[in-house]
Formats: sequence, structure tokens, C-alpha cells
Amino acid sequence: MTASDVRPSAVPVADVQIGDLVRPELRGQEPYGAPQLDVPVRLNTNENPYPPDPATSAAVARAVAGAAADLHRYPDREATRLRTALAGHLTADTGVPLDARQVWAANGSNEVVQQLLQAFGGPGRLLLSYGPTYPMYPEYARNTGTAWRCEPRDERYGVDPARLVDDLVTHRPAVVVLASPNNPTGTALPLSTVTAALEAAPGLVVVDEAYAEFRRGGVPSAVELLDGHPRLVVVRTLSKAFAGAGARIGYLAADPAVVDALRVVRLPYHLSALTQAAGCALLAHRTEQLRTVDALRRGRDDLVAWLRARGWTVPDSDANFVLVGPFDDARAVWDRLVARGVLVREIGGPERLRVSIGTPDEMAAFRAAFAAVTSAGAP
Amino acid sequence: MTASDVRPSAVPVADVQIGDLVRPELRGQEPYGAPQLDVPVRLNTNENPYPPDPATSAAVARAVAGAAADLHRYPDREATRLRTALAGHLTADTGVPLDARQVWAANGSNEVVQQLLQAFGGPGRLLLSYGPTYPMYPEYARNTGTAWRCEPRDERYGVDPARLVDDLVTHRPAVVVLASPNNPTGTALPLSTVTAALEAAPGLVVVDEAYAEFRRGGVPSAVELLDGHPRLVVVRTLSKAFAGAGARIGYLAADPAVVDALRVVRLPYHLSALTQAAGCALLAHRTEQLRTVDALRRGRDDLVAWLRARGWTVPDSDANFVLVGPFDDARAVWDRLVARGVLVREIGGPERLRVSIGTPDEMAAFRAAFAAVTSAGAP
Repeated sequence: MTASDVRPSAVPVADVQIGDLVRPELRGQEPYGAPQLDVPVRLNTNENPYPPDPATSAAVARAVAGAAADLHRYPDREATRLRTALAGHLTADTGVPLDARQVWAANGSNEVVQQLLQAFGGPGRLLLSYGPTYPMYPEYARNTGTAWRCEPRDERYGVDPARLVDDLVTHRPAVVVLASPNNPTGTALPLSTVTAALEAAPGLVVVDEAYAEFRRGGVPSAVELLDGHPRLVVVRTLSKAFAGAGARIGYLAADPAVVDALRVVRLPYHLSALTQAAGCALLAHRTEQLRTVDALRRGRDDLVAWLRARGWTVPDSDANFVLVGPFDDARAVWDRLVARGVLVREIGGPERLRVSIGTPDEMAAFRAAFAAVTSAGAP
Repeated sequence: MTASDVRPSAVPVADVQIGDLVRPELRGQEPYGAPQLDVPVRLNTNENPYPPDPATSAAVARAVAGAAADLHRYPDREATRLRTALAGHLTADTGVPLDARQVWAANGSNEVVQQLLQAFGGPGRLLLSYGPTYPMYPEYARNTGTAWRCEPRDERYGVDPARLVDDLVTHRPAVVVLASPNNPTGTALPLSTVTAALEAAPGLVVVDEAYAEFRRGGVPSAVELLDGHPRLVVVRTLSKAFAGAGARIGYLAADPAVVDALRVVRLPYHLSALTQAAGCALLAHRTEQLRTVDALRRGRDDLVAWLRARGWTVPDSDANFVLVGPFDDARAVWDRLVARGVLVREIGGPERLRVSIGTPDEMAAFRAAFAAVTSAGAP
């Protein structure tokens, strides 16, 4: 083993620059993240616009105060209380009985998926996804040395099951990740598509359900398929519908053997005592934390109808955002919205913008700004 | 790109087991971590045995309560306030002026070092260390696809500079990590050894100073070498002397170009709003959090003298633990200490045990138990 790519031997050690030492695939890359601008109406990161109610904030503060008194000690490495509470929430959402052995948690769903690739992906293995989709998938792959391949979704942003099966047989991915509802399109996949993937995939089938609590009535969750499908992994988060983005808690449900594999690659004590305490307190107030979901769903459906009535193309959304377009110059529309105090996201292709669902006041501000900057209407 | 090592094509998809899908190098491995037993005297994970004082706990609780009210929003991706506060603490500890651009923070020094290897190590590159040392180094390497090599320390647990230079020239590691004070031996390296490494290393020189605040008077920190050495990285943590293990905050000081590289591989929003708020509150009470360090140093020096007076071999320690031996059967001694309610750590070779420094009562309990189970004295 030598590391001869680190620098040419001919360069004296004293002349080596940090930029020469960074892995080649990282050079010139920018850190991932939506622009964070201090504007009145932030509809760019799919947060729940409603803060915790005072009773829930107080419960979180009390729980964390308890943890703070013992802050000199390491936390529970297994985060058993938190995983038990997450299992309870998922059972309440889906009706599927689950326990802590089937649930894993980490600092955001980002870390959950990175750990999945550390255990099941890595050098010599492939992650397959269908785009346009969540832009972190190639970053997880890059961070873990996993190859990445992105096949296109169909014209309605779905994934054709026959095409999916063909891709799985041809490319043999260690992991296929299907976002449902998909970011940034809002598209949910039918369970028959997930089942088709499970029957053909040589490795794990990961369904990223970060936005699942926003799905419309009658739209199922892949959690319903866990029983009898040990290679299915369903990823969720407390950052979106659950209104806990600041707490950074992502989780998954899967066969206990998947969880055991993640326990090997997780860094010890990866979840702080503060995170575990705050997460348990939030989950004990799940009714309060989810109290705004119905209003956000209605806000979404209203926005879809309003945009379509003005001639814009908007796919059906089961999430708390909508993708709108096509624009001749999406960047110019984005700029003009920012100038009016409204921040949305440039994503989903050069002609599209993604708009998160905010409060009624925020949506009124968005409509006024959008109508003004697109006064000519849709093309 | 195919993933043909995921499973043999001949195995029907329905028969694939999760254990067959895990990366080969992970199969049969156990999660890292010291055994967590509920005994009265826990001297096994080098925690500071003193909880935060009530005023500091209350300040942490207040800060987190403020963050909890805004928990529906994502945290500051750059963690600028926390990094500024960490820079201030490091300047106070070492006398070296530092600012936030030179400081990076993550969920424990574990995540800091993993990110260093994601940016500067990875497939085709080598991590070099000197053992016996912190057992997480090979795990970081494994998690990032980095090759790992561990050369032996000398008989006094130091690292011979000539040997080090020779190894750097021969093996050309992308990263060499030197723990100082070293876990589990307590050994600090002279700055001349670090300087020798900087002059010969083709890549990064990482000095892991997790225990640096415990160093004896006159023992320098590698932070003093940062100016003029852009390939030097010094890693620290709030988990040990700073008595914040439950908060999971590790950090490093380095050239801003190193920090910029880590910003590319970090997962977005990797530090929660709770962690950032709690960390800032802890650092605002640094005098109180570090108030016990002198007592722990004295407890360490007393334990070293006591063990040596009884004939045991104990290396000089600049940390909050000591390594003692040799035992004919270290596991038997460990078992008998547990039976008396004292938990220490089996580490540092088959004939050694590592003992963290606890409160005076805990050390009295350790001495009584140790004297009883080793009544025949040292070999």
C-alpha cells in the first residue's frame, strides 16, 4: 500500500499546498446547502413553518435540563429510549407494529443514509437513484467511495417498474434509493413499484420517506411492506412534518439485521445526550408536533390549484412543497422573488423552482410576489 | 461499474441474507465501545467524574430552551458562534491566537477525524498511526475506505523521530495521526517529534490532543506549531477535561484551507441547534468546567506513585488515566475488580489495564479493590 497520489515525489514537502492533498473528486466543489438569506418569507428548505407550541418547547427544555446535569458522562450508545419512541411514532403513523430493534437513529437522515452506504455500499459497489431527486445522494456516495448512477424518472416524475427492474438486473446496485414522496417533485411511488424493486434488486431497497407524513389520503407508506421483506429500508426524519429540523434526528425502519450492521459502522456515542432527551420529549408530544400537518396539506393543494389555474405545470405533490415551471429563466424569477422578500429554491432542472408550503400569510406573500414577477403568466 | 461482489448471481434474490450484503470487512465485527456496566465506580471511559456545577447546568438548560423555541428551523450550517467560542477556549489554553476560520467542530472528535479521512484519506490512501493507541483509528480508516498501518511505539510508549521520518518517507501516508497524550498510555510527545513529522510527511500530520488539558506543567501543545505549518491539524474535544461527554462536541484547529475542505464533505446541518447552543453555554463557563482539572491531575500523579510503590509498571501520564501492568491475567484482575464494583478498561495489550482518574472517593475504592485482588503484589 502506498499513497503515491497524494503528491508527486518531486515536489518538496515544504511546497505542498492543502489543495493538492484533498481527494481529487473534491477539488473545486462547494459545500452542499441551499443559500441561507435573511428574508421575511423563507420557503426554500421544506421546514415546517410552525414552531413547537409553548408546552412542547417547555417539555424539551425540561428534558434537556435533566440531561445537562449529567453532561460529564457519555450518553447511551444504543439510544434505546429514543429508538423505542421513534418506533411508537412510526406505528402510530402507519398502523404497522414496530419495536426498537427495527429502528435506527442518527444525526439527521443524512447520517442514516451515509451509514447505510458505509455498511452496504463503499468501494466497488453502486448506489442507484432516479432523478431529478434529492441532491445529497451523490454526496453520500462520494463520501463513502460508492459509485453512483442516476437514471431519469418518467415525464410525470414517476419510476416505471419495468424500467426499474431492467436497471436493477443490468447494473446490480448494492443499494437503490427511491425517494417517495420525491424531493423536489413531490411525487409518491405506488407500493407496486417498491415491490417490483424488492423482487429484482440484488441488494438493499431504500425508500426515503422524509416527507411521508404529508402524503395525501390513501397514499400508503412502504413501512407496510417491511414484514417479509428483510432487504427493505424505510428512512424518515423528524425535520419536516415533525417540525424538529433544529434537533437533527433522522431514523429508519428495517430488519433488525440491517440495524445490527449499522451498529458496527456508527461512531460510538453518535447521538448526544441532548439529542436523545430532546427527541424523546418531542415524540411524547407527537400530536402537538403534527397538529399543523393538515393545514400544510391544504396549503399545498391550494397552491397547486392556484398555479395550475394560472397555466403553470405542477406535478401532484404528496410533500410540503411543489415544483413549478417551466420558466424561460428560473434564476431571474428566483432573483426577483428574493427582491420581494421571498426565498424559494432553484432545483429540479434549469426551468423549475421549488416552493415550500409556509403559513397562510407566507403563502399570500408568495402569491403576490409570484404574480407580480410572472405577470405575463405561464408560457 | 457493476456490484458483482454483492451476491453471487446464482443465488435467487429471495434467498439473499442481510449478512451476505454487508461489506466483507465488516462481517463478524462487533460495535466499538467499552462495556457499559452499572457498577458504583466507573473508571473505564476517561470521563471527567465531576458533573457541571448547578449554575453551568442552568445556563446550558436556558440556552437549549431558547433553541427549542425555534426547533422547526434548521441550525446554522457553519456553527459560527460555536466555532468562535471554541477558538477562544483554545487560545486561553495555549496562548496562541486563533479565530473561527481556523476551527472546525463536529459531533465528537470521532466525526472530526472521520471527516478528515473523507477529505484527505479514502481509497488508495494510507492512515499511519503508532500503537498501542486509540482503537478508533482503524475504524475511521475502515469507514472511509482508507488503508491503515500501525507501527509500534518504543518501549517507553514514545515515537522515535528517526523511525517516524523513515516511516513517512517509506509509506507516504496521506495522514499520520499522533495521539499526544496518547490513549491508553498517557504519553505526551515532545514538539520536536511533531516538527520532525511535519518536515517529512507528504500529507497531513494530525495530533490528537483529546486529553491535552490534563498535561503536566511545561508540556507544550502542538497548537503552538500551527503558525507556519499549514499541514498540521490539532484535534481536541469537550468530552474529557471539559466535562461535556454527553454533549458530543469535538473540534480541531488547522489552516483555514483544511477547514474549507471539511466543509465540502460534512453533511449539511451536521451540528444540531441544541448542540450549538449547549456548546456555547458550556464554553461561556469554561472556568467552572475546568475547575476540577488540577484535582484530577493530582489524583493521577498520586495513583502513579501509589502503583509504582507497589511494584507495578506505569508510564508517565499527561492524561486523566494511567496504564498499569503487567498482569499474568489482566482479564481475571478486571473481573475481580468488577465483582468489587470497580469498572476499569482492558486495553493497551493483553497484560495491561487502564484506570481513569475519578473522585477521591472513587480512587480510594479503586485502591482498596486493587490491593485486594492483587494481594500478591506486582510480579
